[in-house]
Amino acid sequence: MVKIFSQILVFFIATFQLAFSQSFYSPNKSFECHFKLTEKGEPAYKLLYKNQEILSWSTLGLKTKAHQLSQNFEIYSHSLTGIDDVWQPVLGEYKSIENQANEFTVALLQKETQLRLNIIFRLYDSGLAFRYEVPTQEKLHYFELTDELSSFQLTADHHTFWIPADFDSQEHVYNETLMSKIDSKLAKDSNIGLQTFPNQNSVQSPLLMKSKDKIYMQIFEAAVDNYPVMHLAVDTSTFNLTSLLATNAVGSKAFLRTAFKSPWRTISASDDAKDMYYAAKTILNLNEPCEIKDTSWIKPMKYIGIWWEMHLGTASWDYALTQSGQLQPHGRHGATTENTKRYIDFAAKHGFDGVLVEGWNVGWEDWYGKWKEDVFDFVTPYPDFDLKAIHQYAKAKGVKMIMHHETSAAASNYERWLDRAMNVMKHYDYPAVKTGYVGRIIPRGEYHDGQTMVNHFHHVLKRMADNQLMVNSHESSRPTGFQRTYPNFIASEAARGNEFNAWSSGNPPSHETILPFTRLVGGAMDYTPGIFEIELEKANPSNKNRIHTTLAKQLALYVVLYSPLQMAADLPQHYDKYLDAFQFIKDVALDWDETIVLEAEPGDYLTIARKEKQSEKWFLGAITDENKREANIKLSFLQPNKKYQAIIYQDGQTADYINNPKAYEIKTIVVNNQTTLPLKLARSGGVAISFKVID
Amino acid sequence: MVKIFSQILVFFIATFQLAFSQSFYSPNKSFECHFKLTEKGEPAYKLLYKNQEILSWSTLGLKTKAHQLSQNFEIYSHSLTGIDDVWQPVLGEYKSIENQANEFTVALLQKETQLRLNIIFRLYDSGLAFRYEVPTQEKLHYFELTDELSSFQLTADHHTFWIPADFDSQEHVYNETLMSKIDSKLAKDSNIGLQTFPNQNSVQSPLLMKSKDKIYMQIFEAAVDNYPVMHLAVDTSTFNLTSLLATNAVGSKAFLRTAFKSPWRTISASDDAKDMYYAAKTILNLNEPCEIKDTSWIKPMKYIGIWWEMHLGTASWDYALTQSGQLQPHGRHGATTENTKRYIDFAAKHGFDGVLVEGWNVGWEDWYGKWKEDVFDFVTPYPDFDLKAIHQYAKAKGVKMIMHHETSAAASNYERWLDRAMNVMKHYDYPAVKTGYVGRIIPRGEYHDGQTMVNHFHHVLKRMADNQLMVNSHESSRPTGFQRTYPNFIASEAARGNEFNAWSSGNPPSHETILPFTRLVGGAMDYTPGIFEIELEKANPSNKNRIHTTLAKQLALYVVLYSPLQMAADLPQHYDKYLDAFQFIKDVALDWDETIVLEAEPGDYLTIARKEKQSEKWFLGAITDENKREANIKLSFLQPNKKYQAIIYQDGQTADYINNPKAYEIKTIVVNNQTTLPLKLARSGGVAISFKVID
Repeated sequence: MVKIFSQILVFFIATFQLAFSQSFYSPNKSFECHFKLTEKGEPAYKLLYKNQEILSWSTLGLKTKAHQLSQNFEIYSHSLTGIDDVWQPVLGEYKSIENQANEFTVALLQKETQLRLNIIFRLYDSGLAFRYEVPTQEKLHYFELTDELSSFQLTADHHTFWIPADFDSQEHVYNETLMSKIDSKLAKDSNIGLQTFPNQNSVQSPLLMKSKDKIYMQIFEAAVDNYPVMHLAVDTSTFNLTSLLATNAVGSKAFLRTAFKSPWRTISASDDAKDMYYAAKTILNLNEPCEIKDTSWIKPMKYIGIWWEMHLGTASWDYALTQSGQLQPHGRHGATTENTKRYIDFAAKHGFDGVLVEGWNVGWEDWYGKWKEDVFDFVTPYPDFDLKAIHQYAKAKGVKMIMHHETSAAASNYERWLDRAMNVMKHYDYPAVKTGYVGRIIPRGEYHDGQTMVNHFHHVLKRMADNQLMVNSHESSRPTGFQRTYPNFIASEAARGNEFNAWSSGNPPSHETILPFTRLVGGAMDYTPGIFEIELEKANPSNKNRIHTTLAKQLALYVVLYSPLQMAADLPQHYDKYLDAFQFIKDVALDWDETIVLEAEPGDYLTIARKEKQSEKWFLGAITDENKREANIKLSFLQPNKKYQAIIYQDGQTADYINNPKAYEIKTIVVNNQTTLPLKLARSGGVAISFKVID
Repeated sequence: MVKIFSQILVFFIATFQLAFSQSFYSPNKSFECHFKLTEKGEPAYKLLYKNQEILSWSTLGLKTKAHQLSQNFEIYSHSLTGIDDVWQPVLGEYKSIENQANEFTVALLQKETQLRLNIIFRLYDSGLAFRYEVPTQEKLHYFELTDELSSFQLTADHHTFWIPADFDSQEHVYNETLMSKIDSKLAKDSNIGLQTFPNQNSVQSPLLMKSKDKIYMQIFEAAVDNYPVMHLAVDTSTFNLTSLLATNAVGSKAFLRTAFKSPWRTISASDDAKDMYYAAKTILNLNEPCEIKDTSWIKPMKYIGIWWEMHLGTASWDYALTQSGQLQPHGRHGATTENTKRYIDFAAKHGFDGVLVEGWNVGWEDWYGKWKEDVFDFVTPYPDFDLKAIHQYAKAKGVKMIMHHETSAAASNYERWLDRAMNVMKHYDYPAVKTGYVGRIIPRGEYHDGQTMVNHFHHVLKRMADNQLMVNSHESSRPTGFQRTYPNFIASEAARGNEFNAWSSGNPPSHETILPFTRLVGGAMDYTPGIFEIELEKANPSNKNRIHTTLAKQLALYVVLYSPLQMAADLPQHYDKYLDAFQFIKDVALDWDETIVLEAEPGDYLTIARKEKQSEKWFLGAITDENKREANIKLSFLQPNKKYQAIIYQDGQTADYINNPKAYEIKTIVVNNQTTLPLKLARSGGVAISFKVID
């Protein structure tokens, strides 16, 4: 009797708590999400794509120092509403972006503690997004987050494109393995100066996956602000992923207060790989609108700079043999007035907007690896760099200088100097800065990916915005669409850039075919393409490294890797040798009305066409991995009834990224929107095309 | 045979290492110091005062993350030189200060590691100072200090004046016990918001002691920069003290580099308690000369302010009921334009230099105890505080405004705002700022007394100096003479000030008789004396606290507690009631040519005479503890053959700090340097005298 009664009781409780269950759909019904409270009163969700479960029941919650906001919940209220609006990015890949979703909000109450937690789900036709909200309430105001308990219960051992979770670097080569084989120990990279792996089976987001039945999935986040960026701990046997946040100096995750809204967590899915590219629109939709009222000063920039010669090893950032006493020049300093004028001349001649100069300011003699706070001052030039003369020279030539602030990861020191550094920028008319964060973070005990540093990066962005200055941040935590809110955030690195080819085993041919589906979903990357002298030995006999692409692929990257800030990264003298190919870099646009992914297979190939903003010009870029490739592309994206001149920059007949990387052909043909264009790409090759209306 | 050989070997090594021993003397030979290497090759010293051992052999050394710089040393070289110079402080107690000592430098070498460590001893007639120097060397450049191993082996269980080691506060009541009874657990103070006790048997420096045979001793430090301030761990059975430094966020003590010089550690001793006061000169001598070239803008200031009414509880720092949404005024805000003008009027009328206003800027509704980073912005006034109108009003009246920057201990946030905050100060002509650091430090994981915060305080000082602004820092780490190097550091709190009398059990009558021999040895204190309405209930019926002195003692504190920045802390309306007594506050000088301690017994009484800078005026202050006191003071310090008018402000016949605190008498007499003046002090009473040449 007792036993039966007990079973009934359990049944009743279970019924009571399980009583609540809600389903909701994306606008076109391709996605279906279920929400419930488990028997323990845990919030849980599952996600179906085209009636197939891609996430099974996955629990959610937060843990604070004082409270466990993950169970014993009851439903306080819930609501379902539609979202349908459209907005225009200041700079971007699209003239306007539609934001259509169904939003389900569930307000939860822990009866015992009287604590409230809301979870907001948005179901897009691209997939699901959810965030936590800790509303204003009597029993909770300030809280210290010790863990976020979001989980993503995948349903099978998917093929996964991953880089290891690392609180200090995202500059890893992508790995492709089954999820069950994820092991960050295998991913240690001897060329990344600082790596902080939280545990063995963990990865960074965005995480791209492909199921056996060819469903692509991407787990990411949006609108990270005052919060760490999200990594994912992987249970390699159950395929359950859980959020993993960088710790702060006191061992917790974040200091927060109500009303609090977490970043959005996103799960996109599609049977078409192109949608993994378009998912970037959802990330932007989930970010807050632009906070900058007058955005007229935010402009795309094409630039060259004193930079690649340091990576090549023919010049140096530092000026002197030693930092002690009077600086004694060693004669290899790159950032000289004379060299800068040479770059300004080149920029002016070829219509570039800007010239970046790295190593212009004192401190480079002894800057790296010492966890040293006061390396740089951001205002004192080396004796051979004449700020004023360069300013005047650039102004006369109609070229803007781009500032460089390497912080050596001493964020605290940079913040001390920031106002003075910006004064120098304003005084000498630098419209943009490239920031750098190489090394261990100061304040000590913090990581690049923690709340403190996310706040630092945003502090810099906002202060730069106050002064109408644009930011291109390197070694910062990866972007999650915050450029919608602060569009002066024109680009960032936050992934393995082209520079790795100069002094490491480099970037494998597949690298650039993965980035657009992962890292770039969060925002533009300053990848610095355009290296024409593929064999670095030709520029520096002691540098035996090389670029792992053809020259034509370097051109295609200007279209494939979106950025409103694009560098022509090679040396002027190398461009002078290939001025016909260089013409594409000069012509290619930076800001777009339209972007169309024509072909996509992450890790294999990608072909994109884009229409220049407020222009009839189109540009096409196609790249492939280590395999050669042929394709026929329909130019149906072109405007009907118009003739276009298409200048095609393609791999030469014998081109090959290892054996003959610089063989390219340029041909000009006439096409229209009925044309089907055959593309032929060498191993790690590419095609770049510019289309101009001629009739 | 083997055994004997081994013994001989040990003997030889021991002889070799023990062979070195050096004695040296202070200029007048009152002190004798011995240095040796122990059998383990540890550096050790002992100290004799008038042939009596006050420190027996005490070992020295540093410990870094990679190296143990405390043993296995050999002598590399050594030298003994004399120091004899004189210098003039910008602001101070003396027109000039003599610096006479014998300096013994010993350079040590660890043969095995080839590491070098120098120890520099300076023997003054006031006592010993020593510091570590890690010179430039091949095998060591950057290092992380994990411990400082300085020890002070006292020779008996001395009577000790101590406050507990606390990495976040020095605002403790002094304890007087035998050294063997030191126990910080007994010293917990419920009125100190944040206390971080590193361990039970530890104390702060400066530590004042008195032996059974009446030798006074003081252990302190000088020239702390880029290093934590020193606390002392006490072995209560052996009376061995060891340096105890605040940890940083990563658990070590300091990040350093060669050439490195530690702060000086000092041990003063005398059979005359007055020398424990004069020891401040040695602290200054051990600091670096002034770094500010033009010091003409550094001026003493006498000020009043909107401050005490908040401590009394009749007004508030905050303006509104809540911080959310539109600020809703509650009507008790102290820092209004109108109230400020009232203070400006009072300051102008009575010849004060400045008016401090606290609570002028937004943020005070929700600022305390949340470990919140972005409380204050330092530039946005409350709606009822008109920065511009106040600036103009003050300017018209010839009064300077004193800025207030409460940082809520979020040093990181203050650094972000510092340049903008200083722009406001310059724009509205504020010559000085009072800074505050109430609460837990941000960057989180750091303490008020750690290297990071010492660097922060110095950063603020230097930036303020760049802008010709003076600093009075509250809740900062205690001063160690750095005001010699940056004399815009006009005062600091860093001890239990008068404010504690407003909202706690207060400061016992002995408190101000200890401060001049301890905390003030490091630098001026903004104690904020001058409270005339001793019974706070008279100003705020709900405030049952009181000042634990007589009114006359409040006057005497202006002489006894040196500071070039002195507040008349009470409300204008209270001074209006006692304008005859207030005259002393108006008259008393702030900057001095000469300072003479006439009588001293720490914890009991102190009488000081000072000659105003570039003037013939003298001022005298005498205070006593909870015991009444009579004394006869010879006025031999006055210039011979001159007559002086002496205005004497003394306790009334029936005065008593408990029963009749406000009873005072003022009499004017004529004196000369032959006069012996009888002083009569009530319980916790005082005497204040101004002397003016009349013939």
